[in-house]
Amino acid sequence: MKINNKLQNQPIGIFDSGLGGLTVLKSLQKILPNESFIYFGDTAHVPYGSKGTKTVTKYAQNIMDFFIKHKIKAVVVACNTVSAVAFNYLKNLYDIPIFDVVSPSVEFAFKNSTNKNIGVLGTLSTIESKSYTKLFNKLDNSYIIKEVACPLFVPIIEEGWANSNIAKDIAKIYLKEFNKIKIDTLILGCTHYPIMAKTIKNILNADIKLIYSGQTVGIKMKKFLINENYNNCSKKLQKTEYYVSDLPKKFDELGSRFLGYPLNNVKQISID
Amino acid sequence: MKINNKLQNQPIGIFDSGLGGLTVLKSLQKILPNESFIYFGDTAHVPYGSKGTKTVTKYAQNIMDFFIKHKIKAVVVACNTVSAVAFNYLKNLYDIPIFDVVSPSVEFAFKNSTNKNIGVLGTLSTIESKSYTKLFNKLDNSYIIKEVACPLFVPIIEEGWANSNIAKDIAKIYLKEFNKIKIDTLILGCTHYPIMAKTIKNILNADIKLIYSGQTVGIKMKKFLINENYNNCSKKLQKTEYYVSDLPKKFDELGSRFLGYPLNNVKQISID
Repeated sequence: MKINNKLQNQPIGIFDSGLGGLTVLKSLQKILPNESFIYFGDTAHVPYGSKGTKTVTKYAQNIMDFFIKHKIKAVVVACNTVSAVAFNYLKNLYDIPIFDVVSPSVEFAFKNSTNKNIGVLGTLSTIESKSYTKLFNKLDNSYIIKEVACPLFVPIIEEGWANSNIAKDIAKIYLKEFNKIKIDTLILGCTHYPIMAKTIKNILNADIKLIYSGQTVGIKMKKFLINENYNNCSKKLQKTEYYVSDLPKKFDELGSRFLGYPLNNVKQISID
Repeated sequence: MKINNKLQNQPIGIFDSGLGGLTVLKSLQKILPNESFIYFGDTAHVPYGSKGTKTVTKYAQNIMDFFIKHKIKAVVVACNTVSAVAFNYLKNLYDIPIFDVVSPSVEFAFKNSTNKNIGVLGTLSTIESKSYTKLFNKLDNSYIIKEVACPLFVPIIEEGWANSNIAKDIAKIYLKEFNKIKIDTLILGCTHYPIMAKTIKNILNADIKLIYSGQTVGIKMKKFLINENYNNCSKKLQKTEYYVSDLPKKFDELGSRFLGYPLNNVKQISID
């Protein structure tokens, strides 16, 4: 691969239907401190989870075109729905490195589970797509994969009640599904869910390992950038730009809760 | 008003961002049994509640254009967000009778409250718009209006848990806001909320009257149609057609829970 020095310094694009991808951005900023990022939250069309493949693919393509105009060097699809239903289509369509948030977690769980019983939590559409089970089966179909949809996790997180008793009661109902099989690994298959991690951990057996997609995609991306000599070696501080497709105000308020620091200068742009 | 007989037999258009407007449709079918309806659920863009005025107005305009093509004789904006942020704009733009779901409930509560203390429950954007308070103030600013946002009601209704203990715990938190003022009337300012009515009633004092927008807009529309000689006198059975902007499957499944009978032949159509 011929490396273009100018491209090494270009930012990495990250997108999600809304806020959730900020947990992935946070992990990437930690794992790749020299890189700059452009985050796109498609807040005019959020949530993707309840929408059809064709609709979601169209939105994702519009965001990719926006990134291409901004000369990003790589993209992280920080949205489980797009990763599940449109990733291969995007990979074929665009000639830049694209990373999803499903396969790095599957590969990590595959290597680290000892009893081969793995759980996955996600939105309704992610779970209905069976994308995790399909990827595991490609690696080794002797694994038992139990996927559970948790439609109330995103709204309760966005209400700011992730650590409340109500959140605990809701999580207990969803996690009851794991009573029947003794999982040793649980993938948080939605970028919002790391905010609920404490509540989830308190219900599950302490020896169950939680897998965060932000961490697994960050580790995979770091390896790729170093191997391909594609990482940013500039000593300038990395910067992050934020774009949304609807009013920035709410994104700004909730986003700072996700990142743990205030978001500055969120810009609105239409992708329709 | 010169009446076109052909138009009398034309359907009434009803739209919402998704499913919620089906509770309004259900009331209208009961109050106006001779009328035919076209329901449009903008499921590709649902929810409107968290989106900006410009975005929501654009979607509403596209749906109105769709209705005009279908020669509807009147429209019910069965969506509190559109009623709150785009109704006047639509009324000025289109030369057909348009009804919203905010003002009929305000007028009804205004006439029926005896202590002049009125509560309103709604989505975040409806409550933030203060559209109910503004309308009451136009009628009489001596009324005390307490508006409370209930962001978790829609997702818990769509999960099918409207009558669960978790729904009760969530409702208790939101309704605590009414401990300070003794309301005698409570407007359900979101078309989903009638599904939660039983849970809400069990928490509130028994003498608080709930106001349903489907009923109030139905009564207002019936008066208008009769006064203007615009009602359908045909003895043919009324029919309802359903259109959505995303996959019909989920709308079909959840919608039958809202209506109490199965939806047949839901069609998908793009409005972008």
